[in-house]
Amino acid sequence: MKGITKKEFIFSIFILSTLFGFYPFSTSFAQNSDKAKPNVIVIFTDDQGYGDLSSFGHPNIRTPNLDKMVDEGQKWTNFYVAASVCTPSRAGLITGRYPIRSGMASDVHRVLFPDSKGGLPAEEITIAEQVKKAGYQTAMIGKWHLGHHEQYLPTNHGFDYYYGIPYSNDMDQSEDNPQRGNYINGYFEFADDHIPIEYYNVPLMRNTEIIERPADQNTITRRFTEESISFIEKHHDQPFFLLLAHSLPHIPLFASEEFIGRSDAGLYGDVIEEIDHGVGLIIDKLNELEIAERTLVVFTSDNGPWLVFKTHGGSAGLLRAGKGTTWEGGMRVPAIFWWPGSINPEIVTDIGSTMDIFTTVSHLAGVPIPDDRIVDGVNLTPVLMSDGESPRKEMLFYRGATVYAARKDNFKAHFIIEGAYGQFEAKQVLETPLLYDLSTDPGEKYDIAENYPEIIAEIKEMVKRHQQYLVKVKDQLAERESN
Amino acid sequence: MKGITKKEFIFSIFILSTLFGFYPFSTSFAQNSDKAKPNVIVIFTDDQGYGDLSSFGHPNIRTPNLDKMVDEGQKWTNFYVAASVCTPSRAGLITGRYPIRSGMASDVHRVLFPDSKGGLPAEEITIAEQVKKAGYQTAMIGKWHLGHHEQYLPTNHGFDYYYGIPYSNDMDQSEDNPQRGNYINGYFEFADDHIPIEYYNVPLMRNTEIIERPADQNTITRRFTEESISFIEKHHDQPFFLLLAHSLPHIPLFASEEFIGRSDAGLYGDVIEEIDHGVGLIIDKLNELEIAERTLVVFTSDNGPWLVFKTHGGSAGLLRAGKGTTWEGGMRVPAIFWWPGSINPEIVTDIGSTMDIFTTVSHLAGVPIPDDRIVDGVNLTPVLMSDGESPRKEMLFYRGATVYAARKDNFKAHFIIEGAYGQFEAKQVLETPLLYDLSTDPGEKYDIAENYPEIIAEIKEMVKRHQQYLVKVKDQLAERESN
Repeated sequence: MKGITKKEFIFSIFILSTLFGFYPFSTSFAQNSDKAKPNVIVIFTDDQGYGDLSSFGHPNIRTPNLDKMVDEGQKWTNFYVAASVCTPSRAGLITGRYPIRSGMASDVHRVLFPDSKGGLPAEEITIAEQVKKAGYQTAMIGKWHLGHHEQYLPTNHGFDYYYGIPYSNDMDQSEDNPQRGNYINGYFEFADDHIPIEYYNVPLMRNTEIIERPADQNTITRRFTEESISFIEKHHDQPFFLLLAHSLPHIPLFASEEFIGRSDAGLYGDVIEEIDHGVGLIIDKLNELEIAERTLVVFTSDNGPWLVFKTHGGSAGLLRAGKGTTWEGGMRVPAIFWWPGSINPEIVTDIGSTMDIFTTVSHLAGVPIPDDRIVDGVNLTPVLMSDGESPRKEMLFYRGATVYAARKDNFKAHFIIEGAYGQFEAKQVLETPLLYDLSTDPGEKYDIAENYPEIIAEIKEMVKRHQQYLVKVKDQLAERESN
Repeated sequence: MKGITKKEFIFSIFILSTLFGFYPFSTSFAQNSDKAKPNVIVIFTDDQGYGDLSSFGHPNIRTPNLDKMVDEGQKWTNFYVAASVCTPSRAGLITGRYPIRSGMASDVHRVLFPDSKGGLPAEEITIAEQVKKAGYQTAMIGKWHLGHHEQYLPTNHGFDYYYGIPYSNDMDQSEDNPQRGNYINGYFEFADDHIPIEYYNVPLMRNTEIIERPADQNTITRRFTEESISFIEKHHDQPFFLLLAHSLPHIPLFASEEFIGRSDAGLYGDVIEEIDHGVGLIIDKLNELEIAERTLVVFTSDNGPWLVFKTHGGSAGLLRAGKGTTWEGGMRVPAIFWWPGSINPEIVTDIGSTMDIFTTVSHLAGVPIPDDRIVDGVNLTPVLMSDGESPRKEMLFYRGATVYAARKDNFKAHFIIEGAYGQFEAKQVLETPLLYDLSTDPGEKYDIAENYPEIIAEIKEMVKRHQQYLVKVKDQLAERESN
């Protein structure tokens, strides 16, 4: 630990805990209640936008199974990821910490690539390792993207079982792939919806072995669902934790034959409808096994829609911009919490984050939060299971290793703005930050900085406090074979 | 009739009927079924955008009663108004015809003003006059805006009862009204959410008498709901038709005391939540009176959100632009059809229009469609009550008296584009039309005109056919006292 003493560090945890209203030792609820140690399934899609479900406003994509979860559970409409691209967003979910803390957010490279050397460090405590302490069976099915070298794979990070692809489905492209070359005015265009899977040499793995290469992406959504159901069947009589991270709707888009052309929204819609269908099969299985009432299912996405792919990217609904940016469209995602009999069905406008899943699930499993490091996640059970408020009142919007924007209550200040991957909008460090009131202006259209200098000052102070307790760690994304 | 013979005219009706798949004489369904002559309630809001309900994607506005109607009924996601501003949109709803046919769409003035001389001509057959033929009791409650001189008022257009304001709630402004003056860079800004009602000298009328002036707009939403419930109670044992046209959320915004500050979306959200609450009271009353199963309730809006009023205007969700334009955000509106036991609950992506309410309701009441004129509305009961398709495959997008754009199946071509009220985007007559595929691109972002010249040709042909059978009538909006 550099530049901070142990004492300062512990103090910082105390401060952070107080700020976020989280008390690491108050696990009495989980220990004394029959709600203790529920099964947990986290379904995490890739690049699905805020607006890509019927219940979140899409006119043409039908998601009856997710909509049913909305009706029976909680729809969170102010829910954020820890970063607006894959690797750091996933690091945030799995560690409950801003990815800058684990070295998984970088200003050198934005994500891990097939020739990257790094990955999630062994010292990080994952949500899987947390629930293992309470005797859970754990599985990771789908896209990992936190390091593909053996020491970084899910089975070395607390998961008993892994089945999936180690990085994005568009990586390892063949030389002759014509599908992504069509770059015009800031947009990429796929020439065709029928893409040979051979253009992408992505491996499919079981535990630490490659079992198929290239992965047959046409059937991958169906197979991730089937593997999930097998895992649930096998472990339904003991507590289990399942992270199902679909590799789609990240481009290139693929769907099983029976879903091609099924939606009223083109191939992108077909892909979402196949994912939704899989969600329905999982819920059906929980009901059939009579474990729905002891299973929390969380559905969310890793970041906003990849808009530069036009109709192969999704929609952020009324939110501004998409993946790769620190506008709301990049980092606010659809989120549903479902647990019949335990969660009060309602629409929640309180702030939540994927990092809070770590803390909430730890709480439910009765496992203390690590006290030797800063954990950014807060416990959402006061909202999920009673009439309380979300302890989260703040959110930081990182791009790589830099804070670009920050939200406090309804107000969000932007200090730096930049378009997705530098496209459309060049990077601007703003002399006067932009300020938006997200309650009346969720689309970030009407800057009100002039009227609220004191709020900008408060938000700056909040960011400074956060940065003061940051510990410098190794950048895991910087080193690549090609460097 | 000018420039067209009677024979050509009848032929044109035949062509139109065939094109739209509507057969004026097939009313057997309504006559032979116990679904015949249901009560009908049309709830029509003012300037509420596509995205301003929870179930249509708004993150912060809660509309539990409308969302319940969505769950129990049909959510139409490709539903259009006949014009993107008040007067012509209302003329379209009430006559089942594009407002150009009644002289209620004009390139001189866009709507009726307090000093306008015209109104909906007596020769027009309204939806109220239609159902009167089947013995319905009829009432119009709320904003009329089809002529405030006595001969044009609802009670002279088939309504047995009228209670409401005759034009928009922002008209008749006092000289000293500071609230709308703040015009900056194309936006209007209200200085304050607490607007004295006296700034707007709008009359409240009962039948043909002014009973309050200025109307107390703070309580107007509540009172429109209460009047509606009284009417329902009084006539629940005979078929009735009620048009409840809320005058809000058109600016200036007002809400009852108990709703001020209630929403998480500012005053605009409060206003919507009060309307939603009123919808709930009406549904409760139908259930209490045990007439829900013989009552069709339709909810929709008169045009898109008035975006120049910033946070006092609503949101079109993922759709482009708003009120006043022929982009989707101007003319696609939220729409819900609810009739327990008769309507199959589902999401409908087929095309529908407020003009179709005229034809659908006439059909349900067993009243033939007038055969001496072109009626543009189609009968939606094949979708509402069985597994059929919407007969509507086409939609024209008029701005004033001019066709700016047209949709055929999923494709929409823009021939002329222009920002709301000339703001932001100057009028451009396009040499090559823009073309969008609304199935994969509902946000009208990716022009594909180059790839589909044959579709543009088809759409042009469709517009030409429409224009060929247009009969020139007097412009009802042109004449004003101040002219």
